[in-house]
Amino acid sequence: MSNSETQRYALIGTGAVGGLYGGMLARSGVEVHFLLNSDYQHVSQHGLKVESPLGDFHLPRVHTHATAETMPACDVTIVGLKTTSNHLLPTLLPPTTRDGGIVLVLQNGLDIEADAASIVGTQRVLGGCCFLCSNKIGPGFIKHLDYGHIVFGEYDQLSTQISPRVQRIADEMKAAGIDAQPTADLAAARWRKLMWNIPFNGLSVVLDASTKQLIDDPDAVQIVEAMIDEVHHAATVTGVDVDPAQKARTVEVTRQMVPYDSSMRLDYLNQRPMEIEAIIGNPLKAARQCGVAMPTVAMLYQQLKFIERVSTK
Amino acid sequence: MSNSETQRYALIGTGAVGGLYGGMLARSGVEVHFLLNSDYQHVSQHGLKVESPLGDFHLPRVHTHATAETMPACDVTIVGLKTTSNHLLPTLLPPTTRDGGIVLVLQNGLDIEADAASIVGTQRVLGGCCFLCSNKIGPGFIKHLDYGHIVFGEYDQLSTQISPRVQRIADEMKAAGIDAQPTADLAAARWRKLMWNIPFNGLSVVLDASTKQLIDDPDAVQIVEAMIDEVHHAATVTGVDVDPAQKARTVEVTRQMVPYDSSMRLDYLNQRPMEIEAIIGNPLKAARQCGVAMPTVAMLYQQLKFIERVSTK
Repeated sequence: MSNSETQRYALIGTGAVGGLYGGMLARSGVEVHFLLNSDYQHVSQHGLKVESPLGDFHLPRVHTHATAETMPACDVTIVGLKTTSNHLLPTLLPPTTRDGGIVLVLQNGLDIEADAASIVGTQRVLGGCCFLCSNKIGPGFIKHLDYGHIVFGEYDQLSTQISPRVQRIADEMKAAGIDAQPTADLAAARWRKLMWNIPFNGLSVVLDASTKQLIDDPDAVQIVEAMIDEVHHAATVTGVDVDPAQKARTVEVTRQMVPYDSSMRLDYLNQRPMEIEAIIGNPLKAARQCGVAMPTVAMLYQQLKFIERVSTK
Repeated sequence: MSNSETQRYALIGTGAVGGLYGGMLARSGVEVHFLLNSDYQHVSQHGLKVESPLGDFHLPRVHTHATAETMPACDVTIVGLKTTSNHLLPTLLPPTTRDGGIVLVLQNGLDIEADAASIVGTQRVLGGCCFLCSNKIGPGFIKHLDYGHIVFGEYDQLSTQISPRVQRIADEMKAAGIDAQPTADLAAARWRKLMWNIPFNGLSVVLDASTKQLIDDPDAVQIVEAMIDEVHHAATVTGVDVDPAQKARTVEVTRQMVPYDSSMRLDYLNQRPMEIEAIIGNPLKAARQCGVAMPTVAMLYQQLKFIERVSTK
């Protein structure tokens, strides 16, 4: 199952994202260690199952771990947890990441690499954005619905070049069939993803709607477009260049997307904490620090905070 | 039951507002004719019942009508219908209003007198705002909870003086125990009321919340305050002076209010049409015509349109 020429990966969080990409890496022969929580027994016995337009597969035996302590120190630790579990990282990252090893944070939001950086050091952190529709629909069972692109790069980018270690991970991912794209501008990828995440995650909770309901409604889509404008403007004022054509493209891509429940809506429906701060609060703060208000995004944030408070009472 | 010195009133719509004020007028000896729809049989048999901090009362016999055709032509026709029923006015107003008689539109929103004006002529229309918490809780049964102030004046105000006909109605209302205040600036009263109606009606539906839940929540109250600012600014740019102290007062009054379901929330919960256009759409249009955007109010409007579309599918 292992391959001496490739790096050894740890997957912290084996959900919609970690399960899919970790599963694809493992399928390709890379040594991948999965840290599991509630699914540990099931995956240890039955392995990992992925349904995907890229091809279904089942890995009957994968390296499973119930705690970080049993995991080997890995070259690359992929963080696929929700940011609402980042308080666990001080316990999880040190045992799973070898000296000098890299942490690749595949989470939604802005500035969400800071938690990992405070533990292993900024220089050892990469960040990535996943442009995909994927849900965990059962223990160790990932249903990948649409798209699958992943863009990642150095958190602390020091040059305009893609670093060799980012390129190496990209190569290993590509060899595993993952549509991986290394970038020398992680911030642009993050803001581009926020242009989707902020309206569609937030409004799907406030309006109790799927992405399809939102994009098909003439009024909801106006809110979406107003938010995309605000987010794009905020990116610009914080010094991040995102191609303005991405504004229309974000709407267009969603029109062509399969009907999909955003991760925040699934969290809300399943009474899990929502990633309000990572996805909406942090961009608002970043814009505010540059003197820019985002009125509709601010209102969305406040509506979500209200809903969260009522639902956890 | 009638009094030859007072005017004869028609009440079109005997709900939370029309039932309370019409009932108080009738109690004082004024001749009041009530047009009823679903409550006609009940009120004809059992009369009108009002519970109010101003004093409970029961009128066992009132003038009830099932259609406008049986009503006498009145001096003052009070429109207490929801604006969503304004399509009925061409049938209802001509028979109930004598030649030269006055129509007093006691509805929520902006420019909502225009429908009556197009039927009887602008010069015969008054408008009024009710600052009260009142609900119809059963057939012919009004529960008045809090406040009770009514401000009204000429729709087409030609001078800075209160007109004699407005003063006469105010006097008759005051004699009936109604806290009636004639005004020579109806537009200011309308916008002042919108400062409450827009945030509390709209958010109570979008966030599924009572006014108390909204005002007690640190995030929801920020949305409320942002909207009040936008509405006050819109009033100013459309040429209407509202004392800026009303901004804080609107919040303060709501803090001291009994827990209350806004009329829009009750309409939504009871699957009745919501007054989205009158209360939110028209002010948005008025502001837009003066080149002013109201970003959070616009988002609220679009959210409500989405919710309405989903709920009536």
